[in-house]
Amino acid sequence: MTDSSIRRSVVLKRRPKGEPVATDFGIVEDAVPTSGPGEVVTRTLWLSIDPYMRGRLREEKSYAAPIQIGEVMTGETVGEVVKSSDPAFAPGDIVAGARGWQTHSVSPGAQLFKLPKGAASLSAYLGVLGMPGATAYAGVTEICKPKAGETFVVSAASGAVGSVAGQIAKRAGARVVGIAGGPDKCLYVQDSLGFDACVDHRSMDLRQELRNACPNGIDGYFENVGGDVQLAVFEQLNAFARVAMCGMVAHYNDQTVRPGPNLISVVGKRILIQGFIVSDRPERMSEWRAMAEPWIAAGTLAYREDVIDGLENAPEALIGILSGRNFGKLLVRVASSHG
Amino acid sequence: MTDSSIRRSVVLKRRPKGEPVATDFGIVEDAVPTSGPGEVVTRTLWLSIDPYMRGRLREEKSYAAPIQIGEVMTGETVGEVVKSSDPAFAPGDIVAGARGWQTHSVSPGAQLFKLPKGAASLSAYLGVLGMPGATAYAGVTEICKPKAGETFVVSAASGAVGSVAGQIAKRAGARVVGIAGGPDKCLYVQDSLGFDACVDHRSMDLRQELRNACPNGIDGYFENVGGDVQLAVFEQLNAFARVAMCGMVAHYNDQTVRPGPNLISVVGKRILIQGFIVSDRPERMSEWRAMAEPWIAAGTLAYREDVIDGLENAPEALIGILSGRNFGKLLVRVASSHG
Repeated sequence: MTDSSIRRSVVLKRRPKGEPVATDFGIVEDAVPTSGPGEVVTRTLWLSIDPYMRGRLREEKSYAAPIQIGEVMTGETVGEVVKSSDPAFAPGDIVAGARGWQTHSVSPGAQLFKLPKGAASLSAYLGVLGMPGATAYAGVTEICKPKAGETFVVSAASGAVGSVAGQIAKRAGARVVGIAGGPDKCLYVQDSLGFDACVDHRSMDLRQELRNACPNGIDGYFENVGGDVQLAVFEQLNAFARVAMCGMVAHYNDQTVRPGPNLISVVGKRILIQGFIVSDRPERMSEWRAMAEPWIAAGTLAYREDVIDGLENAPEALIGILSGRNFGKLLVRVASSHG
Repeated sequence: MTDSSIRRSVVLKRRPKGEPVATDFGIVEDAVPTSGPGEVVTRTLWLSIDPYMRGRLREEKSYAAPIQIGEVMTGETVGEVVKSSDPAFAPGDIVAGARGWQTHSVSPGAQLFKLPKGAASLSAYLGVLGMPGATAYAGVTEICKPKAGETFVVSAASGAVGSVAGQIAKRAGARVVGIAGGPDKCLYVQDSLGFDACVDHRSMDLRQELRNACPNGIDGYFENVGGDVQLAVFEQLNAFARVAMCGMVAHYNDQTVRPGPNLISVVGKRILIQGFIVSDRPERMSEWRAMAEPWIAAGTLAYREDVIDGLENAPEALIGILSGRNFGKLLVRVASSHG
C-alpha cells in the first residue's frame, strides 16, 4: 500500500536518441495537491499509452510543444474525483482528461469530462470511446470516405485506432484489409474484428500478399505506420484513392530521415493524401461517443485492451508500443477504482 | 510550298527508353481527309507541346490510354476550318481541339471549340487561355487556395502552367515565389510575371535559397517538377499547407523509380497533397476563359510563348520541354493562318 498523501509522477529525465530506454524517465514524488477555486483533484485510475507520445520527447516542436526535461509526461487519463472546488464535480465522480503520467492531478473542472454513471468499462473511454476511437472516426469519415464495394486498407490494424477505423469502413460496405505484425494479430483482425483479410507485414513478400488481399487495388488507406508498409500500399493505390495520414510509428525512433514513396502516381491517379489530428476537431469526440456507445453496449464494435499494471511501468509500455509489442489498446492501470 | 492535298502526321515509331530521341517518331503522309456527315475538316495552324505527352509514350496506361506504335501523336491544336458538313462551322472559322500532331484533321464538330472572331492571339488558346491556363486555375483555386499574407510557391514558374498559377496566387494576395531553371527565367518570373521572388533550382544551395525566399515557410505549393525541388519544398511546408500535384516533369524520362519525400510531417502538420487533372473538370476551361480573356485584353495577365516552326520539329520540341529547354509556353507553328 502506497502512502495516499504522496503523489508520484513520471518525468522526462533525458531526451532519447533513437529508441527510448527506461532510464530516459524518472519518478518524482510530492504531496497530493489540493484544489484551488474551481479546481478538481483526481486520483488516476487509467493512463493511456499512445505512439504520438514519442513526438513529445523530441526537442523540436511538432503540433504540440515538446515535454521539457524534468516535466511530467503528458497523456490521457481516467480518474476518480477525490476533492472538488467545482460544483459540477463531486468526490467519487469518474472523469476523463489529459492529466499526465501521475497518480494524482489537480485541474480546472472545465478540462475534465465526466463519464456516464455505470459505464460498462472506464478504460474504454481512453480507447475505443476516447481519442483513438474518435481519431479513427475522423480519418475514415472525413478523408478516406469508403464506399460500398471499395477496398479499404488500414495499417496497425489490431491497434486502438486501426481496429476502429477498419470496423467503421466495414459498416460503410467496403472490403476491409488490415495490416498487422504477426499471425496472432492477423487472426484477431480477421476473426474478432471481422475484417475481410489481414496481411502480416513481417511476411517475406508484403507486396505480393497485399496484392492478393486487394485484387481490385486500394481505394482508401488509413496510415498508422509508414516505412515499407507505406511504400507497398502506395504502389497499389487506385485512381481517386484517399489516404488519411494518422501516424507513422515505424519512423518515430528514427535518427535520420528515411526516403518516402515517389509521388508521381499521385498526379495521374488524382490521389488525395491528408494529414490530420483529431484534436483539431474537438466536436468529433462527442459525435463519436454518441455513435459508438450503443455499438459497444450491443457488442457490435469489437475492441481489445492490453493492460500493464503500475505507473512505474509506463515508460516500458511506451517503449513497447513503438515496436508493436502491445496487442490492442495499451493502458496502464495506475490504481483500481476501489483502491 | 507543300502539296495542299497531302496530309502529314507525326506518328510514334518506337517507345522511348529514358529520354526520347527524334527517331522514336516518324512522319507519314496520306490524302487530306474529306468530311462525312456532321464532320469538319481543319487545317492545323498551331500545335501545343506539353510535358504530359511523355506519359502517352509509355506502355502502361496512365489516366489516358497510351499512344500505340504507328498511331498519330495526340495533342491540342488550333486550326482553320477548310470544309464543314456541320452547319455550326464554316470554312475560315478558327477552332481549338485535340486534333493531334498533323497538318489536317477531320472530326465531329462537337469536338471543336470555335474561337472568338478577332481573337488577339490564336495561340493563346493553347496556353494562357487553354488547357495549361485552366490547369493552373483549377489547381490554385481548388487545392492551394492561397490567402492574403500566405507564401505560395510554384515550380516550373516560367512555364505555361506555372506562370499562370503564380499570377492567380498573386491576385489572391499571397507572397508568390517561383522556382525556375537559370537566371534568365528567374529574371522573367520576377520582372515580367511580377512574382515576389524566384529561386534558381540549379543554384548550389537550393534549400537555403528557398528558405531565404520564404522566411515564413510555405503555405501553398503548386508542383510541376518533382525531384530535388520537391524534396526541398516539402521540408519547408507549414502546418495546414496545401500541395497541388500537377506534374513531376523531372521524372518523366526516368527508367527507375526515385524515392520521394518522407511524409512524416504530413501528419503533424496536417498537410494536404492532392493530385488533379483539369480534364476531370471540363467546366473549369470555360470558367477560366471567361475570367482570363479580359485580363489578357487589359494586359494584366502576362504570358510568353516559345514558338518552333514546322510540324517536323514537334518531336524535338517535346524532347526539349522535358529538360526545360523551352522558355514560356511551347508551341509548334504548323501553318500560318493565311498560308
